[in-house]
Amino acid sequence: MTAADNIRIVLASRPQGEPAAENFRVERVPLPRPAKGQVLLRNRWLSLDPYMRGRMNAGRSYVAPIEVDAVMEGGTVSEVLESLHPEFEPGDLVLADGGWQTHAVADGDTLRRKLDPQDAPVTSALGVYGMPGFTAYAGLHEIGKPRPGETLVVAAASGPVGATVGQIAKLRGARVVGIAGGARKVAHLRDDLGFDVALDHRADDFAEQLKAAVPDGIDVYFENVGGHVFDAVLPLLNEFARVPVCGLIAHYNDSAPPEGPDRLPQLMGLALARRLTIRGFIVFDFNKLYPEFLREMGAWLRDGKVRYSEDIVEGLENAPQGLIGLLRGENFGKQLVRIA
Amino acid sequence: MTAADNIRIVLASRPQGEPAAENFRVERVPLPRPAKGQVLLRNRWLSLDPYMRGRMNAGRSYVAPIEVDAVMEGGTVSEVLESLHPEFEPGDLVLADGGWQTHAVADGDTLRRKLDPQDAPVTSALGVYGMPGFTAYAGLHEIGKPRPGETLVVAAASGPVGATVGQIAKLRGARVVGIAGGARKVAHLRDDLGFDVALDHRADDFAEQLKAAVPDGIDVYFENVGGHVFDAVLPLLNEFARVPVCGLIAHYNDSAPPEGPDRLPQLMGLALARRLTIRGFIVFDFNKLYPEFLREMGAWLRDGKVRYSEDIVEGLENAPQGLIGLLRGENFGKQLVRIA
Repeated sequence: MTAADNIRIVLASRPQGEPAAENFRVERVPLPRPAKGQVLLRNRWLSLDPYMRGRMNAGRSYVAPIEVDAVMEGGTVSEVLESLHPEFEPGDLVLADGGWQTHAVADGDTLRRKLDPQDAPVTSALGVYGMPGFTAYAGLHEIGKPRPGETLVVAAASGPVGATVGQIAKLRGARVVGIAGGARKVAHLRDDLGFDVALDHRADDFAEQLKAAVPDGIDVYFENVGGHVFDAVLPLLNEFARVPVCGLIAHYNDSAPPEGPDRLPQLMGLALARRLTIRGFIVFDFNKLYPEFLREMGAWLRDGKVRYSEDIVEGLENAPQGLIGLLRGENFGKQLVRIA
Repeated sequence: MTAADNIRIVLASRPQGEPAAENFRVERVPLPRPAKGQVLLRNRWLSLDPYMRGRMNAGRSYVAPIEVDAVMEGGTVSEVLESLHPEFEPGDLVLADGGWQTHAVADGDTLRRKLDPQDAPVTSALGVYGMPGFTAYAGLHEIGKPRPGETLVVAAASGPVGATVGQIAKLRGARVVGIAGGARKVAHLRDDLGFDVALDHRADDFAEQLKAAVPDGIDVYFENVGGHVFDAVLPLLNEFARVPVCGLIAHYNDSAPPEGPDRLPQLMGLALARRLTIRGFIVFDFNKLYPEFLREMGAWLRDGKVRYSEDIVEGLENAPQGLIGLLRGENFGKQLVRIA
């Protein structure tokens, strides 16, 4: 129990292009009260993810947009303060969709799982051992299907999806080329994560570097970014290459399509000539794999076979700046907000 | 045995854009002689197919291009004149890759099958009961996977691939919208082939007509054409729609990409948001299905459940004009050349 108010961040207005501070508003409201079957949560950690940018737009993407004046949505690690659900008691730590706020009420039945700090650091449930890690796992399992000896390329490779994609592909026997922005991230891929090659997409000769890095072509391109990285990848795709389309962060702030020529027919022509499989997915499409993911990833984490890094913003009030930075690629590893 | 010469049509020069008569040359050369294991063939029927345009270009697509001065390639129904192969004897009719010529020598082991006129009209082996029909069958079986009640859209729908796609999809329980050019073709789809809706892509309000024709959206779009048909289809694709990419005839004569804006990022964004599967294929990728295709299609043809039409050009010397017309959509049904 607590007598404090709920501090929350709502969508004040829809951004045009890159989000700005004025698109968000901090509010102080009375604590919500749980009803039967519900729990009152104190959110401890908030996850920031690229998909949030899409939710800020009016148009329906794969889920409905966040309404103006509604609380920004997001995954949280939360502590149960009060429980009117038989499976939870005060002090439990849970993985929740608590949103951008200090407190939340949730139906106990919708909480995905309890978190045991003895099992894995609880923040990993927002990264490698949660939605982003499962995204990597499911996208490879269902679409990318890297085989031993094949070449996989992944961009945004120091982020929680990309880093996990590369490490799983290595465990499956593939050769892995990771792409990131800046020397520090590139060194991390090579030195800490064991990627075969790591490239900086900001280099002037990036396309040539990528070509040199894949002498046998590309069999799997795990698409997180789009933009000039995809442009460099396209001519290098092998026959029967698979392109799981997981994200397009380079385009989330686009307010208009880029100038021509129109390369849509060219992409379809390449899909035909090279027999490409280009397939979009969202992690929820593959929920049936979730138990298998928890089991396999849990073992990899315990054995040190998969590593991860986190980038922490202090204080809920700094979440907007955290998301803006994430969309610029300024984060290093999984972007979290510690809610004070 | 015959003492005649071989008349053949070679690629005289590579076309820029639409092929023209001067890109082809007729030659008269001595008859080739079969060696051990080979047969001498008299080609009776030549198949004209859209893929031939791609072969006339220098750049490698999925197979090597036809060299300048080499015989134009193509499937044929041919009669064995002389056989040095134990399985064939003079008078046998075979499905061959005889090319644009009156005679050819072939390794007996490479001939796909003997043709029995009692079984099915021999020309069907170049259309519905051969490569184009198998293309339709395999693309639906492996990628499109129409389910009962789903909506399938196919363009170039009076051609041998499109007509077969639509009829198989109907047999599988799907609702089928066919698109073709001109009133005569549209009437054929509706009245002879039993499509649920048939549309003329030349109509000014084609995009609106298509939208009205698919109140539940599009689950499978079998891509034969590209161009403005695909533009109209794109916004109507449902979540989890499948797009087998079989051909792009609207673009085969393109010499430069169309003007902007560049819609490539938009297509990738739609693939993500709608979880599309866009997958190119070539019929040879699915050869393991060929026996099943022959069995199932054979039964459908005997039972009158699949129908087909043919458009015949008389005389080998008119094959170039036949191909040029095919690329303009002037043919009505499977385009054949009767070699006099």
